[in-house]
Amino acid sequence: MTFKVDLNCDMGESFGAYTMGHDEDILDFVTSANIACGFHAGDPATMRKTVKMALEKNVGIGAHPGLQDLVGFGRRNISLSPQEAYDLTVYQIGALSGFVQSQGGKLQHVKAHGALYNMAAKNAALSEAIAEAVYDINPELILFGLSGSELVKAGEKLGLRTANEVFSDRTYQPDGTLTPRTQPNALITDTGTAINQVIRMVKEQKVATVEEQDIAIQAETICIHGDGVTALDFAEAISKSLKDAGIGVMKVEDFL
Amino acid sequence: MTFKVDLNCDMGESFGAYTMGHDEDILDFVTSANIACGFHAGDPATMRKTVKMALEKNVGIGAHPGLQDLVGFGRRNISLSPQEAYDLTVYQIGALSGFVQSQGGKLQHVKAHGALYNMAAKNAALSEAIAEAVYDINPELILFGLSGSELVKAGEKLGLRTANEVFSDRTYQPDGTLTPRTQPNALITDTGTAINQVIRMVKEQKVATVEEQDIAIQAETICIHGDGVTALDFAEAISKSLKDAGIGVMKVEDFL
Amino acid sequence: MTFKVDLNCDMGESFGAYTMGHDEDILDFVTSANIACGFHAGDPATMRKTVKMALEKNVGIGAHPGLQDLVGFGRRNISLSPQEAYDLTVYQIGALSGFVQSQGGKLQHVKAHGALYNMAAKNAALSEAIAEAVYDINPELILFGLSGSELVKAGEKLGLRTANEVFSDRTYQPDGTLTPRTQPNALITDTGTAINQVIRMVKEQKVATVEEQDIAIQAETICIHGDGVTALDFAEAISKSLKDAGIGVMKVEDFL
Amino acid sequence: MTFKVDLNCDMGESFGAYTMGHDEDILDFVTSANIACGFHAGDPATMRKTVKMALEKNVGIGAHPGLQDLVGFGRRNISLSPQEAYDLTVYQIGALSGFVQSQGGKLQHVKAHGALYNMAAKNAALSEAIAEAVYDINPELILFGLSGSELVKAGEKLGLRTANEVFSDRTYQPDGTLTPRTQPNALITDTGTAINQVIRMVKEQKVATVEEQDIAIQAETICIHGDGVTALDFAEAISKSLKDAGIGVMKVEDFL
Repeated sequence: MTFKVDLNCDMGESFGAYTMGHDEDILDFVTSANIACGFHAGDPATMRKTVKMALEKNVGIGAHPGLQDLVGFGRRNISLSPQEAYDLTVYQIGALSGFVQSQGGKLQHVKAHGALYNMAAKNAALSEAIAEAVYDINPELILFGLSGSELVKAGEKLGLRTANEVFSDRTYQPDGTLTPRTQPNALITDTGTAINQVIRMVKEQKVATVEEQDIAIQAETICIHGDGVTALDFAEAISKSLKDAGIGVMKVEDFL
Repeated sequence: MTFKVDLNCDMGESFGAYTMGHDEDILDFVTSANIACGFHAGDPATMRKTVKMALEKNVGIGAHPGLQDLVGFGRRNISLSPQEAYDLTVYQIGALSGFVQSQGGKLQHVKAHGALYNMAAKNAALSEAIAEAVYDINPELILFGLSGSELVKAGEKLGLRTANEVFSDRTYQPDGTLTPRTQPNALITDTGTAINQVIRMVKEQKVATVEEQDIAIQAETICIHGDGVTALDFAEAISKSLKDAGIGVMKVEDFL
Repeated sequence: MTFKVDLNCDMGESFGAYTMGHDEDILDFVTSANIACGFHAGDPATMRKTVKMALEKNVGIGAHPGLQDLVGFGRRNISLSPQEAYDLTVYQIGALSGFVQSQGGKLQHVKAHGALYNMAAKNAALSEAIAEAVYDINPELILFGLSGSELVKAGEKLGLRTANEVFSDRTYQPDGTLTPRTQPNALITDTGTAINQVIRMVKEQKVATVEEQDIAIQAETICIHGDGVTALDFAEAISKSLKDAGIGVMKVEDFL
Repeated sequence: MTFKVDLNCDMGESFGAYTMGHDEDILDFVTSANIACGFHAGDPATMRKTVKMALEKNVGIGAHPGLQDLVGFGRRNISLSPQEAYDLTVYQIGALSGFVQSQGGKLQHVKAHGALYNMAAKNAALSEAIAEAVYDINPELILFGLSGSELVKAGEKLGLRTANEVFSDRTYQPDGTLTPRTQPNALITDTGTAINQVIRMVKEQKVATVEEQDIAIQAETICIHGDGVTALDFAEAISKSLKDAGIGVMKVEDFL
């Protein structure tokens, strides 16, 4: 039996004169890139450049639609209707597709950003709207969502390929959700612990919760962070450790 | 010999709680719709609805990219580089394509809006950037531009199909440009005069300038306005008069 | 004993090429104007013109800060922190004050808009942040809030003058809150009923709830709407009816 | 005879999740801060924090209004009318004043940003509009402008106090304007040369142009940059060198 997993990272989050992340370098270690589409971050020039780099490094390209809240970086919940979620998802996938198409590439996946991702994870109506937007644009696209969440369910219901996403640096609750960042034990700061957690999720489909019991979890793609001083080191370490553990690290469309 | 012309109108310019234009009604008379893409006007919900109406009424759908200046409605010149023009054109065509694709339609054309259209008309570098953006996304798209302008030339150079656009309600200068709105004789307010001008442009490829001499002009598409109290009446009148004059009124992809 | 009440209306909600409301006409009937400050509606030119009209007609000028959500017209809840609410309130009061000051006027009051108003009504921390923003800029300002709400309480706690606001065209719940618009009986569409409700609120400090029992209510300012075809007629009717009932209609700073 | 000069720096240019500049540190060396007001950069939270730091370090606070072009950082010319320039200046001065007032401070000056500054420098109508906006809000404010420019002239005409601004790291043309950045010799990269240039401008009211002839120049405030790796070192060096040369470095309101 062979294990395979995708390593994804948010990027293209620079905006105008503002730089964020280490996109070019991190693209050497990840296999899928979630590219911001101008609502919570990113701008047309950044999108073009990020698509170009991802194509050059043969990394899977994903649209990363977010809430229209630039000053809040798309991290604040906005009480939007499913129809509004549908519309902003179509708009942003379309916009990124413009850059992918004009460079002769192919869009691989869609991953909602920040508050949109989190709200959808537990809201079936919102998830269905996002999944429909993806499906209506192109039923071949792969929908990313928190492992076991409503987003993944909504995608499966429509017949979309889905990728269950896990987090290396976050702890899990007994119900499979992430421990909220407001709680002291939300983050895993030790690199070794983080890496062991994801290796186990991939190979055993299990994760130990904060209450120290195992729950079942599916891990098709692992989210890592591109910002912060240690981002590059961590990206390199996790990629190497996964391979050393006999896990194939490749973009999600290559094994789904 | 048969004469054919397209009748185009800007639409989808509503934004959030703000309504502009009489899109649904005007779609009964025009053959091509230039749909705002969210930079100078329009929003995702408006784009979706406008695309839907245009598809239902079998009107040719065009992306109408503009400068990112919502408060100025894209009418104020912004000194942007050709690269910036390229990027915002790709972004906006992509975004509108998202809605067209998700509704099973097909994008027909691209027409730059307001200040972007006017700046490009006399700026070869800007025109080439816009034409390349269109070409890179899809070389089958038709590029609209002021009759005889740099935009049309740039499109032709790349091998794009182009539509020379004329205005029914504007007067012309000896060099074929529109008389600036700041001049007293810029506008033709009499409906009959306006209609006669376009019929002559289509059938004789000529227009009388403000200095009362004829110049050659090509008219593949006629721009009419969707806003203002008389917009609907004028749209109906011009469509009827063109047909009465033996001119086929049809979307541009049907005869180019 | 004399009864006095203020009649307020949201205005200055036009934006760029988009017109909203009948500000100039409605200013003949209201005594206080809540002027949008550019976040949910309004722009610098509109703010300047609206302040000018309000000064000419001797109407009390208020800042009407809203959430930064132009496409949603500030009507969608955004999960912002009290600090964020404080900051956007200071910013917007400041911006409007610029126009008031530059025209030699004086700011009378502050009324939060839409979702910000509604979220604050039942959220003490948010209300305290808004009240502090008002107080820190100028402790002489009057804070408007839903009658009996957290906003009014927060203002009183700080020593601000407050104006309890009532609605003529909305029904009330037994706990004094407005019936949500999602419920069928939320709106009072009959002009006579609407006017009688506010007259009773002013003279008897009572309102009949949807369960047909009276509750106590304070009414220092009445909100009327400036948009819609009947807005002007209603504004004229309510102003006249209040006066006929012996109630002085005047701006809130003249009697608080 | 005593020489005095002000050292100013643009700051408060961070936006949401995006950080720019080293504001806290640079405030130790400058005497006046030009704080972005949310149009080209900055947001309410950043404005509040930057005002707080400037007050704590006793640095003169200025509003730094810019064009509404966040993605272009206010550096691209927008063809706006004098009325539009007036309105956006009033709005932004007002917004920043909200934070200054709420913290018990006092606004010292106004300096237009980027393209607005540059367009105004040679456009009398635009300069007059900006100067009037400043005057109408508060005739005690000091208007910054490129030394000898239309902005300074417009301010003087209205009776405003003005500060002629010079640049340490830019070369000058025979007509007193800055050499455009598009030319190879626009920048002075050697710290010593830069510092000697400003010391001479302050003490001798002269500067050598790129054609190596002296022209007269007035220097009441020196602009330094807060971004880039060497910004802090340069700020410290220029402040020390000016003092060593017997020039008092102090905020402009202390000697104008």
